[in-house]
Amino acid sequence: MTAPLRIGLAGLGTVGTGVVKMIETHAGLIATRAGRPVEIATVSARSRRRDRGVDLAGYAWEDDPVALARRDDVDLVVEVIGGEDGPALATARAALAGGKHLVTANKAMMARHGLALAAEAEARGVALRFEAAVAGGIPVVKALTEGLAGNAIGRVMGVLNGTCNYILTRMQAEDAPYAQVLEAAQRLGYAEADPSFDVGGIDAAQKLALLATIAFGAPVEVEAMTVEGIERVSLADIEHAAELGYRIKLLGVAQAAGGALEARMQPCLVPVGSPIGQLEGVTNMVVLEGDFVGRIVLSGPGAGEGPTASAIVGDVIDIARGVLLPPFGQPAAGLVGAAPAGSGLAPVPAGGGAPAAYYLRFLLADAPGVLARVAAALGEAGISINRMRQVEHDGPEAPVLIVSHRTDRAPLDAALAAIARLDVCREAPVAIRIEEI
Amino acid sequence: MTAPLRIGLAGLGTVGTGVVKMIETHAGLIATRAGRPVEIATVSARSRRRDRGVDLAGYAWEDDPVALARRDDVDLVVEVIGGEDGPALATARAALAGGKHLVTANKAMMARHGLALAAEAEARGVALRFEAAVAGGIPVVKALTEGLAGNAIGRVMGVLNGTCNYILTRMQAEDAPYAQVLEAAQRLGYAEADPSFDVGGIDAAQKLALLATIAFGAPVEVEAMTVEGIERVSLADIEHAAELGYRIKLLGVAQAAGGALEARMQPCLVPVGSPIGQLEGVTNMVVLEGDFVGRIVLSGPGAGEGPTASAIVGDVIDIARGVLLPPFGQPAAGLVGAAPAGSGLAPVPAGGGAPAAYYLRFLLADAPGVLARVAAALGEAGISINRMRQVEHDGPEAPVLIVSHRTDRAPLDAALAAIARLDVCREAPVAIRIEEI
Repeated sequence: MTAPLRIGLAGLGTVGTGVVKMIETHAGLIATRAGRPVEIATVSARSRRRDRGVDLAGYAWEDDPVALARRDDVDLVVEVIGGEDGPALATARAALAGGKHLVTANKAMMARHGLALAAEAEARGVALRFEAAVAGGIPVVKALTEGLAGNAIGRVMGVLNGTCNYILTRMQAEDAPYAQVLEAAQRLGYAEADPSFDVGGIDAAQKLALLATIAFGAPVEVEAMTVEGIERVSLADIEHAAELGYRIKLLGVAQAAGGALEARMQPCLVPVGSPIGQLEGVTNMVVLEGDFVGRIVLSGPGAGEGPTASAIVGDVIDIARGVLLPPFGQPAAGLVGAAPAGSGLAPVPAGGGAPAAYYLRFLLADAPGVLARVAAALGEAGISINRMRQVEHDGPEAPVLIVSHRTDRAPLDAALAAIARLDVCREAPVAIRIEEI
Repeated sequence: MTAPLRIGLAGLGTVGTGVVKMIETHAGLIATRAGRPVEIATVSARSRRRDRGVDLAGYAWEDDPVALARRDDVDLVVEVIGGEDGPALATARAALAGGKHLVTANKAMMARHGLALAAEAEARGVALRFEAAVAGGIPVVKALTEGLAGNAIGRVMGVLNGTCNYILTRMQAEDAPYAQVLEAAQRLGYAEADPSFDVGGIDAAQKLALLATIAFGAPVEVEAMTVEGIERVSLADIEHAAELGYRIKLLGVAQAAGGALEARMQPCLVPVGSPIGQLEGVTNMVVLEGDFVGRIVLSGPGAGEGPTASAIVGDVIDIARGVLLPPFGQPAAGLVGAAPAGSGLAPVPAGGGAPAAYYLRFLLADAPGVLARVAAALGEAGISINRMRQVEHDGPEAPVLIVSHRTDRAPLDAALAAIARLDVCREAPVAIRIEEI
């Protein structure tokens, strides 16, 4: 058995504490599997005195995580401080600059600085791994970077934010509006006091950006993606979608289409019988489609102490075994600034993406000829109607649901704007993409 | 970029041809991801002249796969000949003895000789990988050996034979008996002319044995497992199970329970709403439960040219990248003959395994007091009844369904034997385990 791998653990929140517990609980198991002992040497956090339910007396302490990253008795830094810049980034840079391996759960930092950090790690000959940054305990970075590495990936889809999926699931199950369910989720600890990062789709978009960068060998930035959150998903749409055989999910999709790479995170309708349609609660799911392998579906807990620790320790064991891969599955130099020679993909375009069918909802005056005017406006834009139904109603306004055939987004937006201008249109029309899965 | 990795491909059936296609199609992509070119140097098969739809003129040819494994211009042997012994095993042994890496899709050989081959590979410092031997394109060996390596695994479950799942799905969907669906499956190429290896559960049991050996760090042999096939699953049971909210699946379960390791492959009832209950057609699914990660579910195509080639090429890319792990995730020496110090698990016991609820079906004379006699026989054995229902019937015999509470198998078997001896019992009672998932 070779020398122990000595960890410097930067951050002792929920995830950091989970890493301590896992490495202490399974010291023997991990040593057997890794071929050498894995030890925590030094820890760092903002407060030394806070009770975290684990005994830290056996570990050296550093107030400053950057100092921890520079210690001679640390071979590998686990960064679980969080935040896109600040101490997390300083710690990561110090670790790599000092020739130390880096394992991080930090999706914000990786989505922003991942390629630069990867280039630095490759230049230094050390590992940089971030399984825990995407979909918690699901080994999806590994599946994509390693297991499916022989495939050209056509599409990656994911439900990557447990808070959003929990809220949408509860709205459906309890017939309750968004604000009420969000409040309950906050009481239960499933949503943050400031939930905007989750419900606004940013957290999920950062994870998708990391997966897409690996999958397509091209840099994908959150700023270039279409990102919509779930704040405007109404209970009415959830219920109407269910009547039509769909569920509404915050779904990330990255796909190579027409020589371009498209990535978006937005509420979509998916068939109720599909694996994603069946996904309930805080569970995450990722669908990977490769040209040889076909469709692989992975699901599991996307957050939390245990699952995130599991992903981090899995990365640590790989490093202890001597595994050294390019962090994004291919040299970072080929990923910065442009699509690599091999991928042939144009940079991520803005806009509505590949054609799709859409779920449309209108609130219209209940008067003769109104439906015909809406149908005519769609027809003029070249959008044909697959299904149309007027919902039973008591008042003078009729909710009308339309499922369109496949269309580009631009003519659809033009038609919706025209319909919104009609005197019979009582509310801004709603359009939600239907994803074929 | 370093020197190419040179492959000797032994076997040119469906899978071998798929490997040729994948490596030719994605030569650039694979070189970028692997950090070096991956080339096929030499191929071997029984017939040189057969048209396989790929051009083999660029590769050296060996009639004898063992000679291929010994060639100096081969760094890595891909064994896709098949069969537990014979040329496959001779080729594998020759490859490892000559210090060459080995990638195999051969579940029969690995289930029988895997630990000995792993010990040899470890001693020689070469890689032995077998992702393609379990669940086709799903990277489950990798997930278990690497991604979840920090966890103590509590249970592994899997639907691991596409032919069986296809047959059971079609029986349910078409209201058709086993023999009729099997014949159709054979016509469509979903079942072999001699299907016994698949429908008898052996193929799936070999795959489960490999996963269980990795998961629990203890040798699991097919001979020590409870293995039942689907040949005796009746349409009546599929339909009655559906009425009760279940599906019947050929389900593999390996779990650590009461200090012992239990592994079985048998038809089970699973809740219709569970991921396994929802699984249709030839798709495979594996559920991995770890103490920190919770439950991870993986699904995808479990067989076929593309998916199997994907798994093989994924392994090849790992090796090209220099990844070297113990094939079963820990040193094989610790796995042979006894549970390793760390696992604390007794060898696999025979018998019925952990307690479970059971679905029971009886065909009874329709006369006063009959149900009471059956209930009494169960009660005497300490088996309590959760649900009981007598099915509508025309003739003088009444089908009776019982869902028991959790019980050990031994008292259940005793009670069933006692009931079978009653004069009112018209048919051997049926008992199918209900798996909690």
